[in-house]
Amino acid sequence: MADQKKMVEAITPMDEDFAKWYTDIVKKAELVDYSSVRGCMIIRPYGYAIWENIQRILDGMFKACGHENVYLPLFIPESLLQKEKDHVEGFAPEVAWVTHGGSDKLTERLCVRPTSETLFCEHYAHIINSYRDLPKLYNQWCSVVRWEKTTRPFLRTMEFLWQEGHTIHETREEAEAETRQMLDVYADFAQNHLAIPVLKGQKTEKEKFAGAVSTYTIEAMMHDGKALQSGTSHYFGDGFAKAFDISFQGRDNTRQFPHQTSWGMSTRILGAIIMTHGDDNGLVLPPDIAPIQLVIVPVAMHKEGVMEAATALRNRLSAGWRVKLDDSDNSPGWKYAEYEMKGVPLRLELGPRDIQEGQCVLVRRDNREKYFVPLDELDQKIPEILRLYQDALFEKAAANRKRRTFQAASMEELCGIASENSGYIKAMWCGSLACEEALKEKAGVSSRCIPFEQETISDRCVCCGKPASQMVVWGKAY
Amino acid sequence: MADQKKMVEAITPMDEDFAKWYTDIVKKAELVDYSSVRGCMIIRPYGYAIWENIQRILDGMFKACGHENVYLPLFIPESLLQKEKDHVEGFAPEVAWVTHGGSDKLTERLCVRPTSETLFCEHYAHIINSYRDLPKLYNQWCSVVRWEKTTRPFLRTMEFLWQEGHTIHETREEAEAETRQMLDVYADFAQNHLAIPVLKGQKTEKEKFAGAVSTYTIEAMMHDGKALQSGTSHYFGDGFAKAFDISFQGRDNTRQFPHQTSWGMSTRILGAIIMTHGDDNGLVLPPDIAPIQLVIVPVAMHKEGVMEAATALRNRLSAGWRVKLDDSDNSPGWKYAEYEMKGVPLRLELGPRDIQEGQCVLVRRDNREKYFVPLDELDQKIPEILRLYQDALFEKAAANRKRRTFQAASMEELCGIASENSGYIKAMWCGSLACEEALKEKAGVSSRCIPFEQETISDRCVCCGKPASQMVVWGKAY
Repeated sequence: MADQKKMVEAITPMDEDFAKWYTDIVKKAELVDYSSVRGCMIIRPYGYAIWENIQRILDGMFKACGHENVYLPLFIPESLLQKEKDHVEGFAPEVAWVTHGGSDKLTERLCVRPTSETLFCEHYAHIINSYRDLPKLYNQWCSVVRWEKTTRPFLRTMEFLWQEGHTIHETREEAEAETRQMLDVYADFAQNHLAIPVLKGQKTEKEKFAGAVSTYTIEAMMHDGKALQSGTSHYFGDGFAKAFDISFQGRDNTRQFPHQTSWGMSTRILGAIIMTHGDDNGLVLPPDIAPIQLVIVPVAMHKEGVMEAATALRNRLSAGWRVKLDDSDNSPGWKYAEYEMKGVPLRLELGPRDIQEGQCVLVRRDNREKYFVPLDELDQKIPEILRLYQDALFEKAAANRKRRTFQAASMEELCGIASENSGYIKAMWCGSLACEEALKEKAGVSSRCIPFEQETISDRCVCCGKPASQMVVWGKAY
Repeated sequence: MADQKKMVEAITPMDEDFAKWYTDIVKKAELVDYSSVRGCMIIRPYGYAIWENIQRILDGMFKACGHENVYLPLFIPESLLQKEKDHVEGFAPEVAWVTHGGSDKLTERLCVRPTSETLFCEHYAHIINSYRDLPKLYNQWCSVVRWEKTTRPFLRTMEFLWQEGHTIHETREEAEAETRQMLDVYADFAQNHLAIPVLKGQKTEKEKFAGAVSTYTIEAMMHDGKALQSGTSHYFGDGFAKAFDISFQGRDNTRQFPHQTSWGMSTRILGAIIMTHGDDNGLVLPPDIAPIQLVIVPVAMHKEGVMEAATALRNRLSAGWRVKLDDSDNSPGWKYAEYEMKGVPLRLELGPRDIQEGQCVLVRRDNREKYFVPLDELDQKIPEILRLYQDALFEKAAANRKRRTFQAASMEELCGIASENSGYIKAMWCGSLACEEALKEKAGVSSRCIPFEQETISDRCVCCGKPASQMVVWGKAY
């Protein structure tokens, strides 16, 4: 069978070629296919089911703190994009332009949205008149387009799926609290649902979002020590409000400018899941977002009673978990390999002997640990083992991050670490763009963030030696 | 208050100006806002929440019959769009063309997808090799763009949200069964969830989808007698497969072409909901898709115990329904008008006297019928009343359709009916394009469908008088 042949070819080991390992997984776990549309990906059913689980959980978290979903147009007229100066400078070089509708040339070009601040601002200007109209806590699930030169599935694609939250508030304090709240939501989601430890902090001026006053980020560390920016939250002050003429009558009857935020998480996070938890046998998925949480593999399935017992078990367990029973003709060994490739957290093996003894074997995806479990204890044991599994994923990722976190007090030390290792380097920074650029040039690292949890490595900038009070985490990034 | 002022202006009565009544509702129920992007709409929280409910129900129905969701690119290269001749002829005149990425001119233009058959075909050609790979039952939730000259919210917009199912099968029979199955899913959804009676039938050659062998449709009749095509399902035969070189090794080891289908329902259906059930006080929403199913309006809310009782009721009823408690400063009368405008199926009024008597008043949106219900019987009474309400919506729409359904045995009769009435006209047809075009020209009606349930009005074509065995339903359409 064609499918079987595909599976038998092993994937490239991670240590041999990490980039190849990544694309092998993406392809062989059937997350993505390529198309003739350069830089765009086809998200296949298994990949999209992961995204649907992510959407469902995040959407619930957003709604729990009062956000509502909306849908704004795909296109932005050129004149609208140009209203906020920093924003257009950041995005104009990387947008796709629509110039014709049918056979007619447009009088004004439309760009395909790279992000929707400008559209939200125009809408807010229509609907906000009084402090009573505030806040608006909106979110949108959609796809956006950024004209990238080089692309990789999930990590950097011309089109990607995401959510973009856009909120508008009466006061600066409220907007800043929203910005931080949404960063906390992302961190909670990454750590507690995806088992990915993240570093929370602020982006430098150089790395912040085009048009923002401040950008906050959660940074995850991949297995190879590179950082992946996994969610960002921006505070805009009243800059967009002024550019788009959004004002409201305040409680004191004066005309005031509102304060805005935006925040986003995208299909990039699938790249983080793959590169944080995956191994040389394939994907390893956290249970909350796994399309299949438990796969039942019947052993000696043509023996009397096996399929009946397996089917009964599937029906029973489906009430609590996403369960698949694989009753195909493939051998159990082939199935084991397939569901390991697909990262299914638990495998349940059930053969004639097990049925006789009223038990089954549960096998964890991460370490292949086996548990012999009486059938009538499954409802207690499955959540217990999934908990252990989830914790182990987090611990393994945290241990990798710890092993790959360094600190440097001098430029020489920093360059030495950066040349020999891949990971986070903590070092003091004076706050100047010149030093940030020098670090990029000399050590090949960029600032990942100014962590909220600060430490004092020294009292001098690692680059220029001037007094420094900020510790920055530096590294290479996807 | 600005909001209050907005509400006080009444909407245009339906009988005075149906088109104005429609846009008034769309605007004042806060379903949609306009933007500077011509022909595109902003779907506001209340409108989007309806769409989310539609998505949730439909997605569940699709998955229950084995469909999986995927995501394909937003763009289609010009050469790919051109591979199937009829398809490109139908769509090329109405697509938006991307010609530049950043500042670079593209070597090949990309169109923004108007529908995704071509992309699905390219993907199928990659992943299908053997009969074992079939069927693929895919669906995609996304937005599409068609360059329309004149637009109206939900009914005809340049960009709209929809789902597009695309399936591929081993045999013609399987694909045809799928096409009909999905039409039944749409009819079930429209009738049982949206309370909209629909006519099921086949489109004529002239009206079928570009590239299809046959197109099936569900047609709904709006309050003004015009038809709205509400969902379509297409059988493609192996035409696309041949154009895109999709073939598989059959059970008999020969190379074969698979058979395909596609089917879609869009945000247009919100237009159908508005124009089927709405009245001069605003929206009237079927319970299954209403963002708020029951609104609690406390009366004399500043009297002791009222807000406590209302809050307790909200908390209790929220376990079973989507409930809102309006504790704003607005008067009860103002609130009644607001939630009537928003089409909330049930209003629950609760005042000090009611609390004393352990009861409340439930008021239906459709006919303002009042029910005095003991508080401890609410859990039984609410579903009972919602059932009556849902049935009444369906009956009212069915009665309108019956009143506006005519039949004609001659051209003279047909023209007379069409000039004096708006509705469906049943008449026999010989099957020729000439007669179809003559009916359009002389009576201003188009063929809505060839209903599955046929009747014999006469044995002659209403137009040319030649022998005819097909009854067609003719009418004006949105």
